Amino acid sequence: MFGNFETYIRDKGLVTEEEVRLMLGKATARKFRRRQLLLREGDVCQHKIFVSKGLLRTYRLKEDGTETIMRFAAENSWIVDHQSYHNQTPTKYNIEAIEDSEVILWTRENFEGLLLVIPTLRDLSERLRIDNLHASQDRILMNISATSEEKYQEFVNAFPEVFRRVPLHMVASYLGVSRETLSRIRHAQQRGQ
Amino acid sequence: MFGNFETYIRDKGLVTEEEVRLMLGKATARKFRRRQLLLREGDVCQHKIFVSKGLLRTYRLKEDGTETIMRFAAENSWIVDHQSYHNQTPTKYNIEAIEDSEVILWTRENFEGLLLVIPTLRDLSERLRIDNLHASQDRILMNISATSEEKYQEFVNAFPEVFRRVPLHMVASYLGVSRETLSRIRHAQQRGQ
Repeated sequence: MFGNFETYIRDKGLVTEEEVRLMLGKATARKFRRRQLLLREGDVCQHKIFVSKGLLRTYRLKEDGTETIMRFAAENSWIVDHQSYHNQTPTKYNIEAIEDSEVILWTRENFEGLLLVIPTLRDLSERLRIDNLHASQDRILMNISATSEEKYQEFVNAFPEVFRRVPLHMVASYLGVSRETLSRIRHAQQRGQ
Repeated sequence: MFGNFETYIRDKGLVTEEEVRLMLGKATARKFRRRQLLLREGDVCQHKIFVSKGLLRTYRLKEDGTETIMRFAAENSWIVDHQSYHNQTPTKYNIEAIEDSEVILWTRENFEGLLLVIPTLRDLSERLRIDNLHASQDRILMNISATSEEKYQEFVNAFPEVFRRVPLHMVASYLGVSRETLSRIRHAQQRGQ
Protein backbone atom coordinates (compact mmCIF):
# COMPACT_ATOMS: atom_id res chain seq x y z
CA MET A 1 0.00 0.00 0.00
CA PHE A 2 3.00 2.31 0.32
CA GLY A 3 3.89 1.93 -3.38
CA ASN A 4 1.87 4.89 -4.66
CA PHE A 5 3.25 7.17 -1.98
CA GLU A 6 6.83 6.15 -2.74
CA THR A 7 6.29 6.96 -6.41
CA TYR A 8 4.63 10.26 -5.52
CA ILE A 9 7.32 11.44 -3.13
CA ARG A 10 10.17 10.38 -5.47
CA ASP A 11 8.44 12.24 -8.34
CA LYS A 12 8.62 15.35 -6.18
CA GLY A 13 12.37 14.71 -6.27
CA LEU A 14 12.87 16.13 -2.83
CA VAL A 15 13.73 13.26 -0.54
CA THR A 16 16.48 10.63 -0.48
CA GLU A 17 16.00 6.84 -0.13
CA GLU A 18 16.93 7.15 3.52
CA GLU A 19 14.36 9.90 4.03
CA VAL A 20 11.64 7.87 2.29
CA ARG A 21 12.41 4.99 4.69
CA LEU A 22 12.20 7.43 7.60
CA MET A 23 8.79 8.69 6.43
CA LEU A 24 7.38 5.20 5.88
CA GLY A 25 8.67 4.11 9.28
CA LYS A 26 6.31 6.64 10.85
CA ALA A 27 3.37 5.94 8.53
CA THR A 28 0.27 3.78 8.95
CA ALA A 29 -1.61 2.36 5.96
CA ARG A 30 -5.38 1.98 6.25
CA LYS A 31 -8.33 1.01 4.09
CA PHE A 32 -11.72 2.68 4.29
CA ARG A 33 -14.91 1.43 2.69
CA ARG A 34 -17.22 3.72 0.76
CA ARG A 35 -19.14 6.03 3.15
CA GLN A 36 -16.81 5.36 6.10
CA LEU A 37 -15.69 8.45 8.01
CA LEU A 38 -11.98 9.23 8.55
CA LEU A 39 -12.74 12.37 10.57
CA ARG A 40 -15.98 13.28 12.31
CA GLU A 41 -17.33 16.73 13.23
CA GLY A 42 -16.31 17.59 16.79
CA ASP A 43 -13.17 15.42 16.78
CA VAL A 44 -9.68 16.93 16.60
CA CYS A 45 -7.87 16.25 13.33
CA GLN A 46 -4.85 14.21 14.45
CA HIS A 47 -3.48 13.03 11.11
CA LYS A 48 -1.99 14.11 7.84
CA ILE A 49 -3.69 11.91 5.26
CA PHE A 50 -2.25 10.92 1.89
CA VAL A 51 -4.68 9.27 -0.55
CA SER A 52 -3.04 6.27 -2.26
CA LYS A 53 -6.19 5.01 -3.90
CA GLY A 54 -9.84 6.01 -4.07
CA LEU A 55 -11.61 9.29 -3.49
CA LEU A 56 -12.41 11.22 -0.32
CA ARG A 57 -14.33 14.40 0.45
CA THR A 58 -14.37 16.99 3.22
CA TYR A 59 -17.87 18.25 3.95
CA ARG A 60 -19.83 20.19 6.50
CA LEU A 61 -23.30 19.25 7.65
CA LYS A 62 -25.52 22.31 7.93
CA GLU A 63 -28.19 22.68 10.59
CA ASP A 64 -30.91 22.05 8.00
CA GLY A 65 -29.32 18.68 7.18
CA THR A 66 -27.87 19.71 3.82
CA GLU A 67 -24.17 19.26 3.02
CA THR A 68 -21.51 21.70 1.87
CA ILE A 69 -18.49 20.08 0.21
CA MET A 70 -15.19 21.87 0.80
CA ARG A 71 -12.88 19.47 -0.99
CA PHE A 72 -12.49 16.32 -3.05
CA ALA A 73 -9.21 14.39 -2.76
CA ALA A 74 -8.35 11.65 -5.26
CA GLU A 75 -5.19 9.53 -5.61
CA ASN A 76 -1.86 11.27 -4.94
CA SER A 77 -3.22 14.13 -2.95
CA TRP A 78 -3.29 15.10 0.70
CA ILE A 79 -6.35 15.78 2.81
CA VAL A 80 -6.51 17.32 6.27
CA ASP A 81 -8.58 19.89 8.13
CA HIS A 82 -5.84 22.50 8.44
CA GLN A 83 -7.53 24.55 11.13
CA SER A 84 -8.22 21.63 13.43
CA TYR A 85 -4.82 20.06 12.73
CA HIS A 86 -2.79 23.21 13.37
CA ASN A 87 -4.78 24.60 16.30
CA GLN A 88 -5.79 21.22 17.77
CA THR A 89 -9.39 22.40 18.03
CA PRO A 90 -12.55 20.37 17.26
CA THR A 91 -13.23 20.21 13.53
CA LYS A 92 -16.45 21.47 11.96
CA TYR A 93 -15.99 19.09 9.03
CA ASN A 94 -16.30 15.42 8.18
CA ILE A 95 -13.88 13.53 5.96
CA GLU A 96 -15.53 10.60 4.22
CA ALA A 97 -14.56 7.99 1.64
CA ILE A 98 -16.68 8.41 -1.51
CA GLU A 99 -15.17 5.22 -2.94
CA ASP A 100 -13.39 2.30 -1.26
CA SER A 101 -10.05 3.97 -0.50
CA GLU A 102 -6.53 3.35 0.73
CA VAL A 103 -4.75 6.05 2.68
CA ILE A 104 -1.48 6.62 4.51
CA LEU A 105 -1.62 8.40 7.85
CA TRP A 106 0.92 10.25 9.97
CA THR A 107 0.08 11.49 13.44
CA ARG A 108 0.68 15.21 13.88
CA GLU A 109 3.51 14.50 16.33
CA ASN A 110 5.26 12.15 13.92
CA PHE A 111 4.78 14.43 10.93
CA GLU A 112 6.08 17.48 12.81
CA GLY A 113 9.09 15.38 13.83
CA LEU A 114 9.75 14.43 10.20
CA LEU A 115 9.56 18.10 9.16
CA LEU A 116 12.36 18.86 11.61
CA VAL A 117 14.73 16.16 10.36
CA ILE A 118 13.89 16.33 6.63
CA PRO A 119 14.33 19.96 5.54
CA THR A 120 13.24 19.13 1.98
CA LEU A 121 9.95 17.79 3.37
CA ARG A 122 9.42 21.15 5.04
CA ASP A 123 10.09 22.82 1.66
CA LEU A 124 7.59 20.49 -0.04
CA SER A 125 5.06 21.14 2.71
CA GLU A 126 5.49 24.89 2.26
CA ARG A 127 5.14 24.59 -1.51
CA LEU A 128 1.94 22.55 -1.16
CA ARG A 129 0.60 25.15 1.26
CA ILE A 130 1.37 27.93 -1.24
CA ASP A 131 -0.36 25.91 -4.02
CA ASN A 132 -3.31 25.41 -1.72
CA LEU A 133 -3.46 29.14 -0.99
CA HIS A 134 -3.38 29.97 -4.71
CA ALA A 135 -6.12 27.44 -5.44
CA SER A 136 -8.19 28.88 -2.58
CA GLN A 137 -7.79 32.41 -3.97
CA ASP A 138 -8.92 31.22 -7.41
CA ARG A 139 -11.89 29.45 -5.89
CA ILE A 140 -12.92 32.56 -3.94
CA LEU A 141 -12.65 34.67 -7.10
CA MET A 142 -14.81 32.13 -8.95
CA ASN A 143 -17.32 31.98 -6.07
CA ILE A 144 -17.90 35.70 -5.91
CA SER A 145 -17.63 36.68 -9.58
CA ALA A 146 -18.61 33.80 -11.89
CA THR A 147 -22.03 32.75 -13.16
CA SER A 148 -23.32 29.26 -12.33
CA GLU A 149 -22.54 28.18 -15.90
CA GLU A 150 -18.94 29.38 -15.57
CA LYS A 151 -18.52 27.65 -12.21
CA TYR A 152 -19.79 24.38 -13.65
CA GLN A 153 -17.58 24.58 -16.73
CA GLU A 154 -14.51 25.47 -14.68
CA PHE A 155 -15.08 22.45 -12.42
CA VAL A 156 -15.43 20.10 -15.40
CA ASN A 157 -12.21 21.49 -16.91
CA ALA A 158 -10.19 21.53 -13.69
CA PHE A 159 -11.30 18.16 -12.27
CA PRO A 160 -12.48 15.96 -15.20
CA GLU A 161 -11.59 12.80 -13.29
CA VAL A 162 -13.46 13.77 -10.12
CA PHE A 163 -16.41 14.97 -12.22
CA ARG A 164 -16.66 11.51 -13.78
CA ARG A 165 -16.63 9.81 -10.39
CA VAL A 166 -19.06 11.83 -8.24
CA PRO A 167 -22.84 12.37 -8.50
CA LEU A 168 -24.00 15.75 -9.79
CA HIS A 169 -25.51 16.78 -6.44
CA MET A 170 -22.01 16.67 -4.90
CA VAL A 171 -20.67 18.95 -7.62
CA ALA A 172 -23.58 21.32 -6.87
CA SER A 173 -22.74 21.24 -3.18
CA TYR A 174 -19.03 21.97 -3.90
CA LEU A 175 -19.88 24.90 -6.16
CA GLY A 176 -22.58 26.40 -3.93
CA VAL A 177 -25.10 26.14 -6.76
CA SER A 178 -28.47 24.46 -6.37
CA ARG A 179 -28.90 20.94 -7.74
CA GLU A 180 -31.77 22.16 -9.95
CA THR A 181 -29.67 24.93 -11.50
CA LEU A 182 -26.84 22.48 -12.23
CA SER A 183 -29.21 19.94 -13.82
CA ARG A 184 -30.63 22.69 -16.00
CA ILE A 185 -27.12 23.78 -17.08
CA ARG A 186 -26.09 20.22 -17.88
CA HIS A 187 -29.22 19.55 -19.89
CA ALA A 188 -28.78 22.79 -21.82
CA GLN A 189 -25.18 21.82 -22.61
CA GLN A 190 -26.17 18.31 -23.68
CA ARG A 191 -28.84 19.70 -25.99
CA GLY A 192 -26.25 22.08 -27.43
CA GLN A 193 -23.81 19.29 -28.29
CA MET B 1 6.92 56.07 8.65
CA PHE B 2 8.64 52.93 9.94
CA GLY B 3 7.22 53.41 13.45
CA ASN B 4 4.05 51.37 12.99
CA PHE B 5 5.96 48.52 11.43
CA GLU B 6 8.49 48.47 14.27
CA THR B 7 5.66 48.25 16.81
CA TYR B 8 3.93 45.54 14.76
CA ILE B 9 6.98 43.34 14.35
CA ARG B 10 8.03 43.72 18.01
CA ASP B 11 4.47 42.80 19.07
CA LYS B 12 4.93 39.59 17.15
CA GLY B 13 7.87 39.05 19.51
CA LEU B 14 9.84 37.20 16.91
CA VAL B 15 12.75 39.41 15.91
CA THR B 16 15.63 41.04 17.77
CA GLU B 17 16.66 44.74 17.58
CA GLU B 18 19.41 43.76 15.16
CA GLU B 19 16.94 41.89 12.96
CA VAL B 20 14.52 44.84 12.94
CA ARG B 21 17.40 47.06 11.76
CA LEU B 22 18.22 44.49 9.07
CA MET B 23 14.60 44.47 7.86
CA LEU B 24 14.29 48.26 7.82
CA GLY B 25 17.61 48.53 5.97
CA LYS B 26 16.00 46.68 3.05
CA ALA B 27 12.65 48.49 3.23
CA THR B 28 11.25 51.43 1.28
CA ALA B 29 8.53 53.67 2.68
CA ARG B 30 6.00 55.15 0.27
CA LYS B 31 2.83 57.19 0.33
CA PHE B 32 -0.09 56.64 -2.01
CA ARG B 33 -2.99 58.97 -2.49
CA ARG B 34 -6.57 57.72 -2.55
CA ARG B 35 -7.29 55.86 -5.82
CA GLN B 36 -3.61 55.47 -6.74
CA LEU B 37 -2.60 51.98 -7.89
CA LEU B 38 0.25 50.06 -6.22
CA LEU B 39 -0.08 47.10 -8.61
CA ARG B 40 -1.74 47.05 -12.00
CA GLU B 41 -3.27 44.11 -13.89
CA GLY B 42 -0.67 42.60 -16.23
CA ASP B 43 2.34 43.67 -14.12
CA VAL B 44 4.37 41.20 -12.07
CA CYS B 45 3.98 41.64 -8.30
CA GLN B 46 7.52 42.53 -7.19
CA HIS B 47 6.91 43.59 -3.60
CA LYS B 48 5.74 42.47 -0.21
CA ILE B 49 3.63 45.35 1.06
CA PHE B 50 3.00 46.21 4.70
CA VAL B 51 0.26 48.77 5.36
CA SER B 52 1.40 51.30 8.01
CA LYS B 53 -1.53 53.64 7.58
CA GLY B 54 -4.67 53.81 5.44
CA LEU B 55 -6.64 51.20 3.60
CA LEU B 56 -5.95 49.27 0.39
CA ARG B 57 -7.90 46.78 -1.66
CA THR B 58 -7.09 44.04 -4.17
CA TYR B 59 -9.65 43.85 -6.96
CA ARG B 60 -10.18 42.31 -10.36
CA LEU B 61 -11.78 44.13 -13.24
CA LYS B 62 -14.21 41.88 -15.09
CA GLU B 63 -14.74 42.09 -18.84
CA ASP B 64 -18.09 43.80 -18.34
CA GLY B 65 -16.37 46.58 -16.40
CA THR B 66 -17.59 45.53 -12.95
CA GLU B 67 -15.19 44.90 -10.08
CA THR B 68 -14.64 41.92 -7.82
CA ILE B 69 -12.88 42.69 -4.53
CA MET B 70 -10.63 39.94 -3.23
CA ARG B 71 -9.24 41.67 -0.18
CA PHE B 72 -9.20 44.76 2.02
CA ALA B 73 -6.00 45.56 3.93
CA ALA B 74 -5.98 48.16 6.71
CA GLU B 75 -3.20 49.23 9.09
CA ASN B 76 -0.87 46.49 10.35
CA SER B 77 -1.59 43.99 7.66
CA TRP B 78 0.23 42.70 4.60
CA ILE B 79 -1.00 42.77 1.04
CA VAL B 80 0.47 40.99 -1.98
CA ASP B 81 -0.75 39.00 -4.96
CA HIS B 82 0.66 35.66 -3.83
CA GLN B 83 0.36 33.94 -7.18
CA SER B 84 2.11 36.67 -9.14
CA TYR B 85 4.71 37.17 -6.41
CA HIS B 86 5.63 33.50 -6.03
CA ASN B 87 5.47 32.49 -9.67
CA GLN B 88 6.62 35.83 -11.10
CA THR B 89 3.74 35.79 -13.58
CA PRO B 90 1.56 38.76 -14.63
CA THR B 91 -1.11 39.52 -12.06
CA LYS B 92 -4.81 39.47 -12.84
CA TYR B 93 -5.47 41.91 -9.99
CA ASN B 94 -5.09 45.57 -9.12
CA ILE B 95 -4.02 46.86 -5.72
CA GLU B 96 -5.39 50.33 -5.02
CA ALA B 97 -5.39 52.78 -2.12
CA ILE B 98 -8.98 53.35 -0.91
CA GLU B 99 -7.71 56.09 1.45
CA ASP B 100 -4.48 58.11 1.47
CA SER B 101 -2.09 55.43 2.67
CA GLU B 102 1.48 54.80 3.85
CA VAL B 103 3.12 51.50 3.08
CA ILE B 104 6.46 49.77 3.50
CA LEU B 105 7.77 47.76 0.58
CA TRP B 106 10.37 45.02 0.20
CA THR B 107 11.41 43.70 -3.19
CA ARG B 108 10.99 39.95 -3.56
CA GLU B 109 14.74 39.50 -3.75
CA ASN B 110 15.34 41.46 -0.55
CA PHE B 111 12.50 39.77 1.31
CA GLU B 112 13.66 36.27 0.29
CA GLY B 113 17.15 37.25 1.47
CA LEU B 114 15.77 38.34 4.85
CA LEU B 115 13.88 35.03 5.20
CA LEU B 116 17.19 33.20 4.83
CA VAL B 117 19.03 35.17 7.51
CA ILE B 118 16.14 35.65 9.98
CA PRO B 119 14.69 32.21 10.75
CA THR B 120 12.04 33.72 13.03
CA LEU B 121 10.82 35.83 10.10
CA ARG B 122 10.39 32.64 8.12
CA ASP B 123 8.38 31.22 11.03
CA LEU B 124 6.22 34.36 11.14
CA SER B 125 5.77 34.22 7.38
CA GLU B 126 4.68 30.59 7.61
CA ARG B 127 2.27 31.38 10.43
CA LEU B 128 0.71 34.25 8.46
CA ARG B 129 0.35 31.94 5.47
CA ILE B 130 -1.41 29.33 7.63
CA ASP B 131 -3.72 32.05 9.03
CA ASN B 132 -4.41 33.20 5.48
CA LEU B 133 -5.21 29.64 4.43
CA HIS B 134 -7.62 29.22 7.36
CA ALA B 135 -9.33 32.53 6.58
CA SER B 136 -9.61 31.50 2.91
CA GLN B 137 -11.20 28.19 3.89
CA ASP B 138 -13.72 30.01 6.08
CA ARG B 139 -14.48 32.45 3.29
CA ILE B 140 -15.05 29.61 0.80
CA LEU B 141 -17.37 27.87 3.25
CA MET B 142 -19.29 31.14 3.71
CA ASN B 143 -19.40 31.74 -0.07
CA ILE B 144 -20.89 28.39 -0.92
CA SER B 145 -23.16 27.77 2.06
CA ALA B 146 -24.39 31.03 3.62
CA THR B 147 -27.35 33.21 2.71
CA SER B 148 -26.76 36.84 1.66
CA GLU B 149 -27.95 37.99 5.08
CA GLU B 150 -25.45 35.71 6.84
CA LYS B 151 -22.62 36.86 4.56
CA TYR B 152 -23.40 40.50 5.30
CA GLN B 153 -23.64 39.95 9.06
CA GLU B 154 -20.42 37.94 9.14
CA PHE B 155 -18.58 40.74 7.32
CA VAL B 156 -19.88 43.39 9.74
CA ASN B 157 -18.81 41.24 12.71
CA ALA B 158 -15.41 40.23 11.33
CA PHE B 159 -14.36 43.62 9.90
CA PRO B 160 -16.29 46.37 11.75
CA GLU B 161 -13.52 48.90 11.09
CA VAL B 162 -13.32 48.22 7.34
CA PHE B 163 -17.14 48.20 7.16
CA ARG B 164 -17.18 51.72 8.59
CA ARG B 165 -14.63 52.98 6.06
CA VAL B 166 -15.78 51.56 2.71
CA PRO B 167 -18.90 52.25 0.62
CA LEU B 168 -21.57 49.53 0.60
CA HIS B 169 -21.03 48.68 -3.07
CA MET B 170 -17.48 47.55 -2.20
CA VAL B 171 -18.80 45.25 0.52
CA ALA B 172 -21.24 43.83 -2.04
CA SER B 173 -18.40 43.26 -4.47
CA TYR B 174 -16.31 41.52 -1.77
CA LEU B 175 -19.18 39.24 -0.78
CA GLY B 176 -20.31 38.42 -4.31
CA VAL B 177 -23.79 39.73 -3.52
CA SER B 178 -25.58 42.31 -5.67
CA ARG B 179 -25.62 45.91 -4.48
CA GLU B 180 -29.43 45.88 -4.54
CA THR B 181 -29.64 42.78 -2.33
CA LEU B 182 -27.22 44.30 0.17
CA SER B 183 -29.14 47.61 0.30
CA ARG B 184 -32.33 45.68 0.92
CA ILE B 185 -30.69 43.68 3.75
CA ARG B 186 -29.30 46.81 5.37
CA HIS B 187 -32.62 48.63 5.20
CA ALA B 188 -34.44 45.63 6.67
CA GLN B 189 -31.92 45.52 9.55
CA GLN B 190 -32.20 49.28 10.16
CA ARG B 191 -36.00 49.02 10.27
CA GLY B 192 -35.66 46.12 12.71
CA GLN B 193 -33.52 48.12 15.15
